[in-house]
Amino acid sequence: MIKLFHFKLCPFSRRARVSLLELRVEHLLIDEKVWDRRREFLSINPAGTLPVIIDDDEDITVINIYAITEFLEEKFCFNHLQESLIPGEYGERAEIRRLVDWFDIKFYKDVSGVILRELIDKYYIKDQAISTSPNMDSIRIAQENLTYHFNYLNHLVSSRKWIAGDKFSQADIAAASHISCLDYLNKINWDKWEEVRNWYARIKSRLSFSDILSDKLPGFQPPIHYSDPDF
Amino acid sequence: MIKLFHFKLCPFSRRARVSLLELRVEHLLIDEKVWDRRREFLSINPAGTLPVIIDDDEDITVINIYAITEFLEEKFCFNHLQESLIPGEYGERAEIRRLVDWFDIKFYKDVSGVILRELIDKYYIKDQAISTSPNMDSIRIAQENLTYHFNYLNHLVSSRKWIAGDKFSQADIAAASHISCLDYLNKINWDKWEEVRNWYARIKSRLSFSDILSDKLPGFQPPIHYSDPDF
Repeated sequence: MIKLFHFKLCPFSRRARVSLLELRVEHLLIDEKVWDRRREFLSINPAGTLPVIIDDDEDITVINIYAITEFLEEKFCFNHLQESLIPGEYGERAEIRRLVDWFDIKFYKDVSGVILRELIDKYYIKDQAISTSPNMDSIRIAQENLTYHFNYLNHLVSSRKWIAGDKFSQADIAAASHISCLDYLNKINWDKWEEVRNWYARIKSRLSFSDILSDKLPGFQPPIHYSDPDF
Repeated sequence: MIKLFHFKLCPFSRRARVSLLELRVEHLLIDEKVWDRRREFLSINPAGTLPVIIDDDEDITVINIYAITEFLEEKFCFNHLQESLIPGEYGERAEIRRLVDWFDIKFYKDVSGVILRELIDKYYIKDQAISTSPNMDSIRIAQENLTYHFNYLNHLVSSRKWIAGDKFSQADIAAASHISCLDYLNKINWDKWEEVRNWYARIKSRLSFSDILSDKLPGFQPPIHYSDPDF
């Protein structure tokens, strides 16, 4: 059995979950609020970051999304048990990994990481020595960055079937994981992004995504369109 | 032929270079100062980041260290042409990738990325609208973080032959790439870190590292011990 330690509104946890569902891997979800610094979790991953997988069959722990992505690929796709989430030849695989990196590092740093830090992390941080009110200036700048980066994303999905090419891949899962967290917080004005919206509607109608879209985080109410594939 | 666009004091470029040398892949180096925003380079990678590989034989471009790491592994190691830089079974490979991630994201964010931004980026940025004098407070905090993170690294190399286990791997190359940039700028007090020093001495004596240690960046003079494996 595979256990996944995750947090509902963590884009990296979402990517791990969707990957497991796309690969039809049975798994157990364990909700982890990293801010609590739970001793049992820190003994598994001293860095206290998510996601983490424990694979009982292999008797191993796989920490962080990079290691998890490649582990799932090696264990379930190299033997052709499941269709690869990094499909294609060298060039196609490189393009997928370039875009995964772009979302997980660049987009996260400029947009999703900032908005999640200000609205979610600060809500959960109990330590009163740290300011817990969201910095609205940071959120505003992140939303300006979102416009800039969505222009690029719009360009990608206008010229390709999926984000990295002809096939659905980890690049789509990465993008949708960040975007769905922002959409839960109602930070995307969909009227402005028709092409991205069409791509995201196709993502939302996938079986692997329906679990995530039905998640609720106490204290945060998503907008009505959030879980509607036909939004 | 493989062309590598790199910058001498970029830890990610260093990891790509050392990987190519470890895998005995003939290649051509192209010095790229990303701050110049050279049009030809931006047409290859619009994000303007390093490293980038062009592989003429495959007729592909591979952008950023994640894609490059996995591409080199797939092209040169899956067929057993060269010894893998992510060796072992699932668990060992996951541990290597966890640590690569830890250096490239956590250590870079807290330590090497800050010091390189303050001392190198600001030196090269021509735009006078941006403050170009190093923020000494930021550098001091990064050096405090270095002490904290080196404690962990010391623990790793005290209990293992190489950083991720019994075998030399991408985790060692990642660590050494960040550390060698900091050492070029004389930001490591080696007297405090005997175990890390012993590990780093073994890294420095590898053939793949000698090229990097003989590099000189105009305007910056490394300390004498920098290129000496017996330091």
